Amino acid sequence: MQVPVLTEPLATKPAFIFDLDGTLVDSVYQHVLAWREGLERCGIELSVWRIHRRVGMSGGLFVNALLRETHQSVTREQVDLLQRFHAEAYARQVGHVRLFPGTSKLLALLTENAVPWAIATSGQMESARHTLKLIDIGSGTPVITRDLVKHAKPDPDLFLAAAEHLKVDIQNCIVVGDSIWDLLAAQRARALGVGVLSGGYGLEELERAGAYRVYQDPLDLLQHLDEVGIRIGID
Amino acid sequence: MQVPVLTEPLATKPAFIFDLDGTLVDSVYQHVLAWREGLERCGIELSVWRIHRRVGMSGGLFVNALLRETHQSVTREQVDLLQRFHAEAYARQVGHVRLFPGTSKLLALLTENAVPWAIATSGQMESARHTLKLIDIGSGTPVITRDLVKHAKPDPDLFLAAAEHLKVDIQNCIVVGDSIWDLLAAQRARALGVGVLSGGYGLEELERAGAYRVYQDPLDLLQHLDEVGIRIGID
Repeated sequence: MQVPVLTEPLATKPAFIFDLDGTLVDSVYQHVLAWREGLERCGIELSVWRIHRRVGMSGGLFVNALLRETHQSVTREQVDLLQRFHAEAYARQVGHVRLFPGTSKLLALLTENAVPWAIATSGQMESARHTLKLIDIGSGTPVITRDLVKHAKPDPDLFLAAAEHLKVDIQNCIVVGDSIWDLLAAQRARALGVGVLSGGYGLEELERAGAYRVYQDPLDLLQHLDEVGIRIGID
Repeated sequence: MQVPVLTEPLATKPAFIFDLDGTLVDSVYQHVLAWREGLERCGIELSVWRIHRRVGMSGGLFVNALLRETHQSVTREQVDLLQRFHAEAYARQVGHVRLFPGTSKLLALLTENAVPWAIATSGQMESARHTLKLIDIGSGTPVITRDLVKHAKPDPDLFLAAAEHLKVDIQNCIVVGDSIWDLLAAQRARALGVGVLSGGYGLEELERAGAYRVYQDPLDLLQHLDEVGIRIGID
């Protein structure tokens, strides 16, 4: 019988994988209205709340889901155009986008205490770059964007890639996200999903999507880190 | 014993009282970002989702609640300034505001079948006027705005005034709204509260605030009018 050899042992201490928009950065409503504007330029009328309930999932699935709801079909060219229109509209809004209370303090505390963390977003690096400027990301922080994986949320690929970069077993990872797509993808990845209300979804929506706990925003999570098993300043 | 004499008997057939923003008109997200812009101009930083969870309530309570969350106090002048900044920012967005699917058809169907209906909104007539232009309101339709009552939602005054104008007992009125403030005010008025998801709140939030039923939007309500006891084309 052959004994498997682990070339590099995985850490057993917990690590964090954060979604970006609506979780660390207060940008969901601006994204939603930018999608709305892009859709309208493509001749697609869709209520804003329906867009809100779909953002955060993979761009391809997002467009598919929206079109299913409007009973329309769409060409590859239209999807590309829609993504360009969204990026243009969002770029005009990005100056109004702010970090949530607690974001900087939470990330700094994790770094200081050697708790590994990463960012995993369904957005393209092109869109995420603007938003990432607001966050003080050390050179060692993995940032996994849509471009780096085959499938985005609710597929688990983004979170699995983040765990791999962190060299932490996905089962020891705490995925923090504001949308049900984050929490569904966390379940599929076998990570622990923690919800935040800061993206504008209801508490019960997040709980029903499998959230282990739900906090208001990064500040509220920071004040309850013990609930997710983070021992800072405790032996 | 004296028998009370009813000078004008109240109708026993049901009537509808509709909230405006987020219920008939797809304007909540634009209002939310307009409040955000106004607050920032007043030097008040507040996450967008917290504003979203407060819109639809009385302007005074809204400002009070927001300030409690930010642990700030505010003068009467600042409140006036905030409302002006909001109105300015919203006026720039109002061109992007559309009716929800089904709004026109639902209201026309009610009118054709002599089901009385009214509009009751926590907004000032100043803001509501732009939005009301999108709706084909007959001359007989009561429109109750913030200016006409002492207290707005979650107080019952707006709905009670609407029922009085309709000459329908409030207990025979179906209040349709997208926010928990509509549903709480409906309970306090002893009307039947019906929720719609089109303002971007979660289903469970509306159910927990006392919704008798929750529909997606006016079109979905139109397709299920029998569930709220409206007999159209039935003896």
